[in-house]
Amino acid sequence: MTAPRLALVPGEPAGVGPELCVRAAQRPWDARLVVYGDPATLTDAAARLGLPLELLPPGAVHAAPGQLPLVSVANAVACEPGTPDPRNATAVIEALARAADACQGGDCDGLVTGPVHKATINLGGIPYTGTTELLAQRAGREVVMMLANDVVRVALATTHLPLRDVADAITPELLERVLRIVRAALRADFGIDAPRIAVLGLNPHAGEAGHLGREELDVIEPVLARLRNEGFELPGPLPADTAFLPGKLRGFDAVLAMYHDQGLPVLKYSGFEQAVNLTLGLPYPRVAVDHGTAFDLAGSGRADPSSLFAAIETCTELASRRRAA
Amino acid sequence: MTAPRLALVPGEPAGVGPELCVRAAQRPWDARLVVYGDPATLTDAAARLGLPLELLPPGAVHAAPGQLPLVSVANAVACEPGTPDPRNATAVIEALARAADACQGGDCDGLVTGPVHKATINLGGIPYTGTTELLAQRAGREVVMMLANDVVRVALATTHLPLRDVADAITPELLERVLRIVRAALRADFGIDAPRIAVLGLNPHAGEAGHLGREELDVIEPVLARLRNEGFELPGPLPADTAFLPGKLRGFDAVLAMYHDQGLPVLKYSGFEQAVNLTLGLPYPRVAVDHGTAFDLAGSGRADPSSLFAAIETCTELASRRRAA
Repeated sequence: MTAPRLALVPGEPAGVGPELCVRAAQRPWDARLVVYGDPATLTDAAARLGLPLELLPPGAVHAAPGQLPLVSVANAVACEPGTPDPRNATAVIEALARAADACQGGDCDGLVTGPVHKATINLGGIPYTGTTELLAQRAGREVVMMLANDVVRVALATTHLPLRDVADAITPELLERVLRIVRAALRADFGIDAPRIAVLGLNPHAGEAGHLGREELDVIEPVLARLRNEGFELPGPLPADTAFLPGKLRGFDAVLAMYHDQGLPVLKYSGFEQAVNLTLGLPYPRVAVDHGTAFDLAGSGRADPSSLFAAIETCTELASRRRAA
Repeated sequence: MTAPRLALVPGEPAGVGPELCVRAAQRPWDARLVVYGDPATLTDAAARLGLPLELLPPGAVHAAPGQLPLVSVANAVACEPGTPDPRNATAVIEALARAADACQGGDCDGLVTGPVHKATINLGGIPYTGTTELLAQRAGREVVMMLANDVVRVALATTHLPLRDVADAITPELLERVLRIVRAALRADFGIDAPRIAVLGLNPHAGEAGHLGREELDVIEPVLARLRNEGFELPGPLPADTAFLPGKLRGFDAVLAMYHDQGLPVLKYSGFEQAVNLTLGLPYPRVAVDHGTAFDLAGSGRADPSSLFAAIETCTELASRRRAA
């Protein structure tokens, strides 16, 4: 079987994304990468780093350090590292859209994305809440965000919601859909036949039998009971503070947190550099870096490519497994 | 200066507290310990562990392994490890109350407490929400809960509150009082002249400039600005997921989390065994173990005394600093 073909999108051209892609071009991968982005930005980034870069036609294959197949999506204006220009917002979004379409159409087997800067996109006149949401809408699928490193995989029942809206957003319907998506992805993409998904409670101490909130009793436990009848392995609802103890984590294939700040601090503490952001539920695997545009580092050559490299490796693994299925 | 005198309360007699106190009696400390509890329970625990125990009058001093000065607070009934008896609830609470009074009256310089079982106390007919609350009420002080290990100190703006009530509980008045208590404790008890207290946002990404909630702009930032004018060092409001990155933590003397599950998962992940629970704002230092009664381990001899030992060491340090001041 040939190596999977991965669409690689650098993201915001004034951020660290382009230089991380240039670094990725210096070494071989178990995937055939094809970049969707602006050729001049990549060439400039390579020159700044003092690294070779030879942009190839989209169908070509990386054969030497610096070679990188490219689907050109040209920026509107030249850009300076660290200084985002809203006039390039259209090109940033178009690169994402074309890469997503290539994955949906079967031209590519998975999508790896660098960091995008939401405010700059919005300043460019494009309504955009996040790449995950853009991809979900384009595919017409409900998706789940999962962050993962070597220590733990954390899926989120809710993501970028004000804290005061979280409790009402946790409905039985949402939880059931999310757990089905997470389990299906762990089986299909990660090859775990009977995944154990630890489900956190919403309240401190998982509600302590109703003394600290009733959502565990009224909302979460009934859903878990129903899905366990279908064969789901769902320890929980568990108190968030002790569910992440290293000895417990080793017994779980993933943790479902009810909200952002319940699940992500441990994930980032335990290995930020290697962390990646996965979108579960799409018709193709999508893995993103777990860091931002880092405008302060852009152009300095000091940006750490570990997260992008981990994203490429993870996406390669997931795409290979889907193709073998 | 003589060593500080610490009141040690085993807590629930059917839990692991008594056997952990027996283990503490086997070694010397830089403090003079005096236990407030039931003599028979301690003697039984020592026999079960095969360790020496010689209970001394309260004013005596530990001079050999197994010696332990005791203020006797007798249980109503004999108890079996692992099987809590609500008839002993009165004695459990009385031991805490007498130890607290000894600290308030100056007989003791600090309080170290083992785990108590809330449900058993309530079944015994005593309204009780937690030892922290009991001590605060007895002292007529507002207090702040702080959990600490060798990696991080986490103070909580709210503690055991259902998640849906958290946002409304974070008022400017509460935040200001909490930050004053935390800063005063870091200065007086920990000897940090100009403590840096990282303040987390309430919402994901600390609200992202109002896009993900307005409490950072409307509530938190104005309080921080006001206190900074008084010389407080208060980085924040910070996104919770990145504030705990190891490199950032090293720049903070403490982190103030807005709620339980935002602050405690990283703390427990990064070192549960050595973690202790401090009550800031009392007229004396109080340090508790950061674990429960562990009924499943009680009597087995397998309970890990690390948290109690860390609590004794921490309380010794805090009490010594107060006496030197």
